[in-house]
Amino acid sequence: MSVRIVALGGGHGLYATLSAARRLTPHVTAVVTVADDGGSSGRLRSELDVVPPGDLRMALAALASDSPHGRLWATIIQHRFGGSGALAGHPIGNLILAGLSEVLADPVAALDELGRILGVKGRVLPMCPVGLGIEADVVGLEADPRLSRTIRGQVAIATTVGKVRRVRLIPGDPPATRQAVDAILNADLVVLGPGSWFTSVIPHVLVPELAAALKTTTARRVLVLNLVAEPGETAGFSVERHIHVLSQHAPDDFTVGDIIVDSARVPGDREREQLRRTATILGAHVEFADVSRPGTPLHDPAKLAAALEGVLQKDAQPGGAVLPPTVSTPTANGPRGDDPWR
Amino acid sequence: MSVRIVALGGGHGLYATLSAARRLTPHVTAVVTVADDGGSSGRLRSELDVVPPGDLRMALAALASDSPHGRLWATIIQHRFGGSGALAGHPIGNLILAGLSEVLADPVAALDELGRILGVKGRVLPMCPVGLGIEADVVGLEADPRLSRTIRGQVAIATTVGKVRRVRLIPGDPPATRQAVDAILNADLVVLGPGSWFTSVIPHVLVPELAAALKTTTARRVLVLNLVAEPGETAGFSVERHIHVLSQHAPDDFTVGDIIVDSARVPGDREREQLRRTATILGAHVEFADVSRPGTPLHDPAKLAAALEGVLQKDAQPGGAVLPPTVSTPTANGPRGDDPWR
Repeated sequence: MSVRIVALGGGHGLYATLSAARRLTPHVTAVVTVADDGGSSGRLRSELDVVPPGDLRMALAALASDSPHGRLWATIIQHRFGGSGALAGHPIGNLILAGLSEVLADPVAALDELGRILGVKGRVLPMCPVGLGIEADVVGLEADPRLSRTIRGQVAIATTVGKVRRVRLIPGDPPATRQAVDAILNADLVVLGPGSWFTSVIPHVLVPELAAALKTTTARRVLVLNLVAEPGETAGFSVERHIHVLSQHAPDDFTVGDIIVDSARVPGDREREQLRRTATILGAHVEFADVSRPGTPLHDPAKLAAALEGVLQKDAQPGGAVLPPTVSTPTANGPRGDDPWR
Repeated sequence: MSVRIVALGGGHGLYATLSAARRLTPHVTAVVTVADDGGSSGRLRSELDVVPPGDLRMALAALASDSPHGRLWATIIQHRFGGSGALAGHPIGNLILAGLSEVLADPVAALDELGRILGVKGRVLPMCPVGLGIEADVVGLEADPRLSRTIRGQVAIATTVGKVRRVRLIPGDPPATRQAVDAILNADLVVLGPGSWFTSVIPHVLVPELAAALKTTTARRVLVLNLVAEPGETAGFSVERHIHVLSQHAPDDFTVGDIIVDSARVPGDREREQLRRTATILGAHVEFADVSRPGTPLHDPAKLAAALEGVLQKDAQPGGAVLPPTVSTPTANGPRGDDPWR
């Protein structure tokens, strides 16, 4: 039996995790943030009563079949309308998801149906069945640097020139998507991150039922840190600070098994030792691994897959889930992730 | 070998023909007018460089598979966005077709791909690979009833309160879709009409290559007349007048084998005799048949299928294409056309 991997996140970070996870198993479930209020998703939210489709569409494209039809439809859903009219800038997939959601009156059914067209082997789920808002306490926007202001909206938070102290979901106690909770509980490996820390990663631990499932599951839990501090919401953040703010937002007893950190980001022995100490606040072991694509701020899917496989096999020793032998060389297992069509 | 039917038209009339033809054979090709400038199609044309998708989408829905997936996707493509924003009123299928056309840079490839998703057994083709304009000479709009004015656009013509004398395509000599010409040449039965006479039926004989193919083909050619004179472009038109104006617009040597007329529309013997004489200007035999759905101005798909089958079997005597015996009872051959989901 091949392993079941659940990846939680949003945007390009989640795309990277999914591109890695699909190399290890066909049983990949994406659990996706639903607080986006920018671009096409923002326009669709303001117009129709839909879960913001952009990050969900990206996740579907990441898991699309490598068949000609799968590739064609991945291209189709990612294609943005041209021109300068009412449709300009909308990716076709966002419109299809919005339409399917209207017809089927259920975002999960809509995602399953579009996933079928794309030949997605796993599943893409919204973390909540309804769109959410997000707000942040931000300092550094006033003359007095200690003064905190509340900023609302994913775009506003992601691009703030201030320092984000804390984020909250609106409503503060949103329901989790039932199928997402089930997937976490039945997983062998749960991967949180990388991605925009405050707006794509931390929101998952703010949904009470997701946080509870992450605590209950017997799955190996892995946190994948970003390669670089993003401009905006985490500008200048150290690796340690990423761990601290996640810990501050998660329930008290929130832990992960492993934290995957790119070796090049923390080259020195003393820094690594300090990071290992910080990781104990999440009860985590730190895995240093080469997971970056040279010359880019992006994770390399094959390298990240190898790192995730390493974590899984560590777990396999005492009798956990076992990867099939065919997947022992991730780079040979699938051509995706480096394809020019992505 | 089952017969190959090509149906030329547009809008609801073509939907009726296709719903009938699919009961006789899986080899149905729709050849669809592309001059629509109203509603969602008009908005998309003004915004993107696409063939107006509305009538093409309707034809795809008419030929969608009866499987659960086929029915679901027929519902999906026909669903119109709600709300009051930029998307309101656009059927999802129009947006998908517009997007597929942008990605594939070919309206025929776009239709084939969406047809695949819907499980369409036949094929839907635009009559021309580019969107066309249409203009009409209309009398009765001025104080002097003999004065003619030129009106431009399908919506304007279809809804004019004047009397349409003549229509022209813009450009006047448009290219036909190659695959549509091939389908006509290889057909066993070609069906023209019913539909909006000046804007959905006559345009086909104004495309030189289509008119030539209609002349060259060895297929049995059938003209299906409208059940009632439509308000607007053919308000008050007699059955004879429909035949006359088609003949006036077609090339000199244009003929059809049969004209199917609803029995109830021409009940009297003397009127029928007169109609038979008029039909000779198209070289046609008149078939009176009950083809209407009681209490509606619509063709009944099962009855129309029976009438088309009658024409085909007439032809079969001297050795033409033969319907398989299983289709001798059209009403038993498929539940479509009367389904509530249409």
